[in-house]
Amino acid sequence: MNTLLLDSEAVDEYAALGDVIDAVEQAFAAFERGTTQMPAKSYIDLPQYNGDFRSMPAYLEVRGSDASSSQSGSQRDSDAAEEWDAAGLKWVNVHPDNPADHDLPTVLGTMIYSDPETAFPLAIMDGTMLTMKRTGAAAAVATDHLAVADASSLGIVGAGVQSYTQLRAISEVRPIEEVVVSDPDAERVERFVDAFADEFDVRAGSISEAGHCDVLSTVTPVEDPIVGREDVGEHTHVNAIGADAEGKHELRDELLAAATIVIDDHEQCTHSGEINVPYGEGTLTDDDIHAEIGEIVVGSKAGRTDETGITVFDSTGLAIQDVAAAHVVYDRARDAGEGYAFEMIDTETQ
Amino acid sequence: MNTLLLDSEAVDEYAALGDVIDAVEQAFAAFERGTTQMPAKSYIDLPQYNGDFRSMPAYLEVRGSDASSSQSGSQRDSDAAEEWDAAGLKWVNVHPDNPADHDLPTVLGTMIYSDPETAFPLAIMDGTMLTMKRTGAAAAVATDHLAVADASSLGIVGAGVQSYTQLRAISEVRPIEEVVVSDPDAERVERFVDAFADEFDVRAGSISEAGHCDVLSTVTPVEDPIVGREDVGEHTHVNAIGADAEGKHELRDELLAAATIVIDDHEQCTHSGEINVPYGEGTLTDDDIHAEIGEIVVGSKAGRTDETGITVFDSTGLAIQDVAAAHVVYDRARDAGEGYAFEMIDTETQ
Repeated sequence: MNTLLLDSEAVDEYAALGDVIDAVEQAFAAFERGTTQMPAKSYIDLPQYNGDFRSMPAYLEVRGSDASSSQSGSQRDSDAAEEWDAAGLKWVNVHPDNPADHDLPTVLGTMIYSDPETAFPLAIMDGTMLTMKRTGAAAAVATDHLAVADASSLGIVGAGVQSYTQLRAISEVRPIEEVVVSDPDAERVERFVDAFADEFDVRAGSISEAGHCDVLSTVTPVEDPIVGREDVGEHTHVNAIGADAEGKHELRDELLAAATIVIDDHEQCTHSGEINVPYGEGTLTDDDIHAEIGEIVVGSKAGRTDETGITVFDSTGLAIQDVAAAHVVYDRARDAGEGYAFEMIDTETQ
Repeated sequence: MNTLLLDSEAVDEYAALGDVIDAVEQAFAAFERGTTQMPAKSYIDLPQYNGDFRSMPAYLEVRGSDASSSQSGSQRDSDAAEEWDAAGLKWVNVHPDNPADHDLPTVLGTMIYSDPETAFPLAIMDGTMLTMKRTGAAAAVATDHLAVADASSLGIVGAGVQSYTQLRAISEVRPIEEVVVSDPDAERVERFVDAFADEFDVRAGSISEAGHCDVLSTVTPVEDPIVGREDVGEHTHVNAIGADAEGKHELRDELLAAATIVIDDHEQCTHSGEINVPYGEGTLTDDDIHAEIGEIVVGSKAGRTDETGITVFDSTGLAIQDVAAAHVVYDRARDAGEGYAFEMIDTETQ
């Protein structure tokens, strides 16, 4: 039997964002329903190389769901009757010195996608591109449930690689026309504007200009918050993507205090997400957390209502998102005859 | 940059047992010295498929060691000055219904071998063959330190796939001439005898005949012990390989009580190794455990002395063994120009 090998290009091609958004939404719903298994990430810390490894295994079972796009603004048409299960593991890292010292990305992921019934490794694929796609998809799911229905403007703070996927993914759930990008690096801003000038009304702006759009995505690695209460509109939905480790946060405490806060996972968010610093200090408590995103997807907690003001989605990134995205990539690539078929394991003699 | 893909055949060819035994011995020593990181295995249980997945990440640093073959009987010549570090992860499973229901092996492993400095995935290889090699190597390391110096006979209880590697590996550390194999399945016994008839004086025998050899390896999945005190010789060294889950054990309590017990890792052995049942019942305690194998390798605890009678090595299999074995396979395969070079991660655009 063969294992399908899929490189960055194949993952990019077959992780169609609409499909990945649906799969990630189904994964959030399954997580809420308790039909997933997601052991805590295990870390290997390598201070001598200023880096770490993370092992992210997960299993999820989608039983045919009532997950629906409850927002009137949604442009999607989910298939509510789908049933599938999937297992896999992402082996990933954060090595911040990689770009400067080794001309390599900070994050280098490898995803193994396995058949739960036999454990056969169906596919091995680039986990770096996959991480970008599933992260964008999570923001899109949250935006679909939490942004105003007619949202047409998107602000982005931080014009790195993830900013591109944020725009692509969020455009799948709202008819984005206007884009404001904010980054102290003028070259990165220019690159972003050039990339999207043909499709959107896109321009550089201040953090406050970005934050007064209908939707804001923050994708920076800062430890001193850069977005205050006065920087966002009265009904802005904020996707807080950047914080992924203890000590990092992008939004000031008074903005969080004013917002309806939705998280992806309580343990990860309180340890390493946007809320980890105020939560650790006790200035933000469980009473300030409105819901996990899965609760909103299945309808046990409300998404945006007429009374809702600012909303914040704290996205840390879950292993079930990776498995859901890999499920999409494998299915589509296999059907297309894409990838290199590798007989890694000799199943005859063993 | 390319990731080297290595199939079962390549792992078999480049995991030369002498090299893997050296690397695993160095890994045990590093574990004892505290220059390894090995988060607890994390499990995903799938009762609906009668199976589970296990995530086994590890890092190890070998600083140039005093690990030496202290046994006069050793046939090996270790390079004591070697320095290396290595990281990786094995994603593996146990699905006992695979052979009958799917014509697949019970265990299907995938190993990702990574550069600790950058986290780049240097190689992805078959983890099924690798598991066999590193398990045989662990038994060989224990045998080297615990069997009588002039051991020339080896008994094997259980003639499955691992029995072959036990003989090959143990022959690397002792001049084995006589082999007695015991298994209720006559066909498996015949296959084993045929495979080695040209090289060894090999014959079928009872459990007691196998156990009266100088070295005994037990490689069965039984839950009711099958080897008693009277079944082994006064100075036999026993490698207890089979037990890998709660409830499994191959050796009767009175045999364990009479033996000097050496384990690979306290947590794994007391939860899922040969000693897990009597340890759980309280009939075997920490006072009955002589050492971890790493303590013997570095010389902080004694191996076999003139006063030692029966010895038992409880081998559960550690993630550092997998990484050590993968280190050997990757180095040798790369030098030989073997494997398929796959540009999995596009490091230019990300």
